[in-house]
Amino acid sequence: MNIFEESKVLDSHLSSESTTIELSCLESSYPFSTVQQLSRTTPEYSSSPIPNFDRCNSQLNEKNTLMSASEQSSVVQPLLTDLYQISMAYAYWKGNKHTEMATFDLYFRKNPFGGEYTLFAGLEECLKFIRDYKFDPSDILYLRSVLPDYVEAEFFDYLLNLNMNDIKLYAVPEGTVVFPRIPLIRVEGPIFHTQLLETTLLNLVNFASLVATNAARFRQAAPAQKVLLEFGLRRAQGPDGGLSASKYCYLGGFDGTSNVLAGKLYDIPIKGTHAHAYVSSYESMDDLNERNLRDRISREVRPFADLCLQYLNEVGKILNILPDETNKGELAAFASYAIAFPTNLLALVDTYDVLKSGLPNFLAVARALHECNYKAIGLRLDSGDLAYLSLEVRKRFIETGQKFGLPYFNDFQIVASNDINEDTLISLAKQGNSIDTFGIGTHLVTCQKQAALGCVYKLVELAGIPRIKISQDVEKVTIPGRKNLYRVYGHDGKALCDLLTKFDEPVPQKGVKILSRHPFSDQRRAYVTPSSVTSLYKLYWADGEIKEPLPALKQIREYATDQLLHLRTDIVRDLNPTPYKVSLTNDLFNFMHELWIRSVPIGELN
Amino acid sequence: MNIFEESKVLDSHLSSESTTIELSCLESSYPFSTVQQLSRTTPEYSSSPIPNFDRCNSQLNEKNTLMSASEQSSVVQPLLTDLYQISMAYAYWKGNKHTEMATFDLYFRKNPFGGEYTLFAGLEECLKFIRDYKFDPSDILYLRSVLPDYVEAEFFDYLLNLNMNDIKLYAVPEGTVVFPRIPLIRVEGPIFHTQLLETTLLNLVNFASLVATNAARFRQAAPAQKVLLEFGLRRAQGPDGGLSASKYCYLGGFDGTSNVLAGKLYDIPIKGTHAHAYVSSYESMDDLNERNLRDRISREVRPFADLCLQYLNEVGKILNILPDETNKGELAAFASYAIAFPTNLLALVDTYDVLKSGLPNFLAVARALHECNYKAIGLRLDSGDLAYLSLEVRKRFIETGQKFGLPYFNDFQIVASNDINEDTLISLAKQGNSIDTFGIGTHLVTCQKQAALGCVYKLVELAGIPRIKISQDVEKVTIPGRKNLYRVYGHDGKALCDLLTKFDEPVPQKGVKILSRHPFSDQRRAYVTPSSVTSLYKLYWADGEIKEPLPALKQIREYATDQLLHLRTDIVRDLNPTPYKVSLTNDLFNFMHELWIRSVPIGELN
Repeated sequence: MNIFEESKVLDSHLSSESTTIELSCLESSYPFSTVQQLSRTTPEYSSSPIPNFDRCNSQLNEKNTLMSASEQSSVVQPLLTDLYQISMAYAYWKGNKHTEMATFDLYFRKNPFGGEYTLFAGLEECLKFIRDYKFDPSDILYLRSVLPDYVEAEFFDYLLNLNMNDIKLYAVPEGTVVFPRIPLIRVEGPIFHTQLLETTLLNLVNFASLVATNAARFRQAAPAQKVLLEFGLRRAQGPDGGLSASKYCYLGGFDGTSNVLAGKLYDIPIKGTHAHAYVSSYESMDDLNERNLRDRISREVRPFADLCLQYLNEVGKILNILPDETNKGELAAFASYAIAFPTNLLALVDTYDVLKSGLPNFLAVARALHECNYKAIGLRLDSGDLAYLSLEVRKRFIETGQKFGLPYFNDFQIVASNDINEDTLISLAKQGNSIDTFGIGTHLVTCQKQAALGCVYKLVELAGIPRIKISQDVEKVTIPGRKNLYRVYGHDGKALCDLLTKFDEPVPQKGVKILSRHPFSDQRRAYVTPSSVTSLYKLYWADGEIKEPLPALKQIREYATDQLLHLRTDIVRDLNPTPYKVSLTNDLFNFMHELWIRSVPIGELN
Repeated sequence: MNIFEESKVLDSHLSSESTTIELSCLESSYPFSTVQQLSRTTPEYSSSPIPNFDRCNSQLNEKNTLMSASEQSSVVQPLLTDLYQISMAYAYWKGNKHTEMATFDLYFRKNPFGGEYTLFAGLEECLKFIRDYKFDPSDILYLRSVLPDYVEAEFFDYLLNLNMNDIKLYAVPEGTVVFPRIPLIRVEGPIFHTQLLETTLLNLVNFASLVATNAARFRQAAPAQKVLLEFGLRRAQGPDGGLSASKYCYLGGFDGTSNVLAGKLYDIPIKGTHAHAYVSSYESMDDLNERNLRDRISREVRPFADLCLQYLNEVGKILNILPDETNKGELAAFASYAIAFPTNLLALVDTYDVLKSGLPNFLAVARALHECNYKAIGLRLDSGDLAYLSLEVRKRFIETGQKFGLPYFNDFQIVASNDINEDTLISLAKQGNSIDTFGIGTHLVTCQKQAALGCVYKLVELAGIPRIKISQDVEKVTIPGRKNLYRVYGHDGKALCDLLTKFDEPVPQKGVKILSRHPFSDQRRAYVTPSSVTSLYKLYWADGEIKEPLPALKQIREYATDQLLHLRTDIVRDLNPTPYKVSLTNDLFNFMHELWIRSVPIGELN
């Protein structure tokens, strides 16, 4: 069983080579056995009145996963839309056109960040929005107050009783690598209903896909062994902007977040130790109210503060610095943190001076922890030249480890933060550095390089008749009609192109040459002979229910990672990547261009 | 009564000139009589089970205002924080330091968008967060699962029973123009409590202030008579990112939004008519199920569709275009929209071709509306060269109005949208255009020019002892200690500088020369002799309650607009604005620099 279990593998005569690549890609990602079903009920977890502290973590995590599926931001509701959707709904209703069956495509026109790929995300949120679609009586009251007096009471009754049971939603699976102009979501149903969904679906897909793609690009920019943590909550665009960023950065390949609520709701690993304020909160070793630590093994009480001071002298000799000159408030802060979390010391070392104060203080406390049979984790740099400092710090780890006869000191983790972006990661990788983990905030979560993805939602068919939207900007012209979408693979198992067909065209076949056409340009054509073909759409919503099991976030993350691994490297690279081809069949091309020319008025020269 | 009613006007011997300017500025903005008090109860509005359609709008709006004060995004909760806040809280608790009284300053280091001013926003949300601060038992269960086993049950009990009744929050009023390094919020209380607030307060202030400032800059870039509408929901960073943007763009000077939920929750005017999909949904005049419209005055049924076709011929002659060549689906769409909203026709005219199709179709329908004693509103341009098109369209309005003998055609509104940013507004103003209203989305709400504001939250005093945070980046050094903040005005009533003082220094006096110092640079000093002085802080939270009446959004908006009007124009201008001075008293400067030098270790050359 795999993600495409219900979409046909269109040719069973695949070459063994491409089959292997394709199936291994898919099987590793969405194992059916752990897939969850969305539930309409309130999660048991959040309704539990008293915490049961005896529950083991694995139970808890299971509950979290269920919870993540049914939590939704309270502002995602039918009124979270543009006024004109409601105005149009009324005009359709008034013109007795509201039950006509419509098809809308949701897609974008350009990959973000100057790249040539995008990760599709936000689908689960869209499905929950559709499932729970219901106007509140207070919404109707409000609408009545803002629409003209002549809008009939029957219209408001119609709104009040509205649900989305009559619509169908097709989509590519969440986490799929997608490209400009391919419809990510196709919505079919009465135009009244389908029109009302536009703004909210766009809102839910746009940022989710943008930030997931951003995270994937950061991931590509850093060597695979580096750990990437999302630390952006405080700078994100609002509370939910922060929560969404944590969720979709994880989807895009990050390893964890500092955001505790994201950890609770989405079962994402959470990380973090202490801030500058913690360091500043100690002035001297006299501030330590608790000065002892029990030995991990013997449970004997040890004079930990004194051990720290004693080892600071030794560290000073090794590193040739004056122990008197390290900040003793900082030493006290590290010591107190180690007393609280003897298994978890990761010290922020740049409050005063990394090499002259923070590092020796950390090493002294780490050595004292060793004396009590604990091991420190490492340190964090949050300012200055991160590449240089990390290399200097590593040298001193090794030097101190050698002198103390403790080789594990060599491998203390170095975490770096401070305004890191994609370019910083690329530059750091080139310069050489000894950083193990990056904590990344602002640039990642707010997508500084490009703060919005331009998904649109366009009417392509109504009452069985294809519709086109022309514009003076050619790239804004829509591809009309209901369409199918196929990904065509070459003999090396890599995707050759995506192919849009008319809804009733035969599916592309293995070994059968197809003429593929650029959507807008007559001259740009190519033959393609597939080694295999997959159909990208699945039916996710129909008959008032979610039709597909929805994978957990972790599984979507694995699937997305896998999708990127199987994309041609020249498409993924950061500098001048090759555009991936999104083509039309010859039939669809001709059909589109006939409709286009029919819709454009002919002027008269004069 | 005005916004500073409880802060002293520090010198009662103000010159009459500056008094007048200052008071008129303040009185116009926060009239006390309409100020609302935050209520802890659920708003009656949202709990009303059945809408009462007979309620008049003014009642409704009153309720909305109340509602806006008590609504809060469900994700704003104690767990919406970084893990290290919880880790630090535990370490403070474990080190028996958690009850020490701390002072934290919330401030930013650089104005956004290359400008020299910022609007402070988000305060009300911060106060609601503090008022409602309460861990859920499920939160505790989750935290227990992620923290080490040795963290004591007593700590979790302490968290579970935690509230913010022991802290005090001082702030400058929401909507105040603020500058780098002045603390916008000062939080005092046990370090356990105050530390836990950091991430969430930053999250709530950062984006709110950023997007409010962005809106203010857009407002400055457009001539005052132009209407600015926020249309950004679909491209915003998440659902709440969209809602926050709508709210704070209004605060920053926008005139309305398309976001219906923002209209309901915050009583913001909402605007919008129809989209391209509405136009594409009609193929021809045969698609009109409803072809008639009643005359507004006589109530006689008129053959509206036929009138439109008849007037299209006349418009064709006037504009010298072929009536056959306009798109008849578009004409049908405009006609049907006019039938639904005869008082509200604002037609989107770029689906096929603005000048050859959209405009003549609109004019035909407008003329037909006139025949039925209605007036159209205008049209919207969403692509192409907006300056050129608006001027061409206006010419044709005038030409057609003259021929029809209907001068009000001259004044049809022209609304422009399509990827407008601050630079576009400045360029359009220079080029000349005939646009009345701008609908602005992506660039505004996601703050494309700079997607994040870097507010920080720094410990400045603990247990009565001032704290400093040094860093290898000089600009990251904090100004230690509890401080007061004054705005010093010159004899023209304009602000000269902001002055930070030690908490126990005497307040600056009118006519008494003060030495003001640059925070980081010894050499940069200036004498300033105030004509008047205001104290910027108010106590907003203490004793477990909100201490100040909180103004409605509209009042904050007026106050913010007024603040900008009273700032020197060279500080507000878009190109190379003059930095506003934020200074320290000589005492504070010396105090800070002594602490600084004491905290930095002396190295040894070798």
